[in-house]
Amino acid sequence: MATPGAGEPPGPVGRSEDAWIEAVSHRFVAGPRVLVGIGHDAAVVRLDGPVVVLKTDTVIDGVDFVLAACGARAAARKAVAVTVSDLAACAAWPRAVLVSVVLPRGADFALFDGLGAGIAEAAGAFACDVVGGDTSVADGPLVLTVMVAGEPMAGGPRTRAGARPGDEVSVTGPLGGSILGRHLTFTPRLAEAAALVAADVVHAMMDVSDGLSVDLPRLCAASHVDALVDEAAVPVHEDATRLAREAPGGRTAIEHALHDGEDFELLVAHAPLSGDTRRALARAGVVLHRIGSLEAGAGRVRVRRGGGVVDLERGGYDHLRRP
Amino acid sequence: MATPGAGEPPGPVGRSEDAWIEAVSHRFVAGPRVLVGIGHDAAVVRLDGPVVVLKTDTVIDGVDFVLAACGARAAARKAVAVTVSDLAACAAWPRAVLVSVVLPRGADFALFDGLGAGIAEAAGAFACDVVGGDTSVADGPLVLTVMVAGEPMAGGPRTRAGARPGDEVSVTGPLGGSILGRHLTFTPRLAEAAALVAADVVHAMMDVSDGLSVDLPRLCAASHVDALVDEAAVPVHEDATRLAREAPGGRTAIEHALHDGEDFELLVAHAPLSGDTRRALARAGVVLHRIGSLEAGAGRVRVRRGGGVVDLERGGYDHLRRP
Repeated sequence: MATPGAGEPPGPVGRSEDAWIEAVSHRFVAGPRVLVGIGHDAAVVRLDGPVVVLKTDTVIDGVDFVLAACGARAAARKAVAVTVSDLAACAAWPRAVLVSVVLPRGADFALFDGLGAGIAEAAGAFACDVVGGDTSVADGPLVLTVMVAGEPMAGGPRTRAGARPGDEVSVTGPLGGSILGRHLTFTPRLAEAAALVAADVVHAMMDVSDGLSVDLPRLCAASHVDALVDEAAVPVHEDATRLAREAPGGRTAIEHALHDGEDFELLVAHAPLSGDTRRALARAGVVLHRIGSLEAGAGRVRVRRGGGVVDLERGGYDHLRRP
Repeated sequence: MATPGAGEPPGPVGRSEDAWIEAVSHRFVAGPRVLVGIGHDAAVVRLDGPVVVLKTDTVIDGVDFVLAACGARAAARKAVAVTVSDLAACAAWPRAVLVSVVLPRGADFALFDGLGAGIAEAAGAFACDVVGGDTSVADGPLVLTVMVAGEPMAGGPRTRAGARPGDEVSVTGPLGGSILGRHLTFTPRLAEAAALVAADVVHAMMDVSDGLSVDLPRLCAASHVDALVDEAAVPVHEDATRLAREAPGGRTAIEHALHDGEDFELLVAHAPLSGDTRRALARAGVVLHRIGSLEAGAGRVRVRRGGGVVDLERGGYDHLRRP
């Protein structure tokens, strides 16, 4: 496991890739899984079995965070956390992290060191090792691409496919308004995923990253089911309420809950829960908020709103549609 | 194994992430190792054992290729090949590839589809599966980050550490002048690495990516040895000779061989080879060009030039030193 802060902070650092990497590497202390770590052409990691779970995700200054506002450490922590969240969604434990950094030209060592601090913080928090990476410079914004390798939890892995007609759909927490800060500080739902697959109730799972109204159709399409969401049952985060109150002409609180991205709660299709299962999950700290149900279909999502039922509009984030 | 070109080319494609990914995914046909592939929060891949080899590398338009000159397909092929080359350098087979694409704002589907073609071509050539990725848009150049997961070859893995005093240092092919085209079209030395570790002669290994004068000191530092290079023995690629001839005021041919990056030949520290071993390697198509020898030390590299011995100047590529 990587532990941040081991050793002394570096002194003046010469301007070269090797010097910068050497100067931040004191932050990354490799655990016993790491057979070959930072400083070689590739890393070698021992898992508990022959199945590896792999994910890569990218965050960009001006798109996924505002570096000038949040700082390098928070940006790098987010880069790792969003990728780990996808492993949680598949019911897998993260084991090894690699980070590719594209620095804006002229970046100073303080930025690079801040990134190292955020990566180490996240690796420590999520119990995985930082085993490698890559550093480049380009005429563009800061780009952080994180690769995580992990292994299935007991009872995992799970995917977006596998949901069945008759299943319930639930989320692990309230949605909306993450832009107020949670999109940087959220905790990937590893513990919740582990409890859910241990309880053997999960048929399909993903994380809510682009917004419920975008992600639920993806789960439904992958599982060949339709969904009916009960809008009144969607848990609305207090940040969504606050956003709606502070910008009265914009989205309502429930619209924030349906369409905002980056909640990173788990979206779970599961069999109806017995009282015993619900209590066992609660003991593990997991509260499932039931938001709807599934029936045979092909990916259509409708919402019960007021007295009627309408198709759920797609309001989430799409990189290619941003002007 | 991914095979390019399965299915029909896509028709008109709507401008959304899901639509673009769907439209290129026909190029990626997952082999039997892939338990969960593209279209889920993470990929799940079965290896032959519990040891995974991991590497990520990034290439950028204007830094590592010129998109307007080489096209999307060649750029994407290079992105995969440079990462696979690092696995070869560690004596590992690539098994699964993930690609993060940061598109310049306004990019059209033809660019994205060309990237898909190059990724599929590389995955087919290097016998690995494309199992996932990520797509973003930013106000900057095209950025391609490739993550490869693999597993050790029989006799592998190897690292930069492990070279011993008394070892010879060799490269698997002539160096220099890759900018004339080989930096895009090279073949990662997987077969050579497999033959070398099968012959049980490799003590340390890496690929020549930033230039011999940068990479050999890295191997020496990691192995706690010094090197003495015989300049006359360094194999000079005909591209290096051509570059020197066409730009008489610039680097000489041997300077190109010592300092140019992106040859992606293997740099190998090994025990002196018996005649039998040399013949066995030759039968496997591997020719080792001996360029020098190692002695106890701390990473210093000297070169025998003319009648004397001088320290080898570092002339390779460093992202942070580029103006």
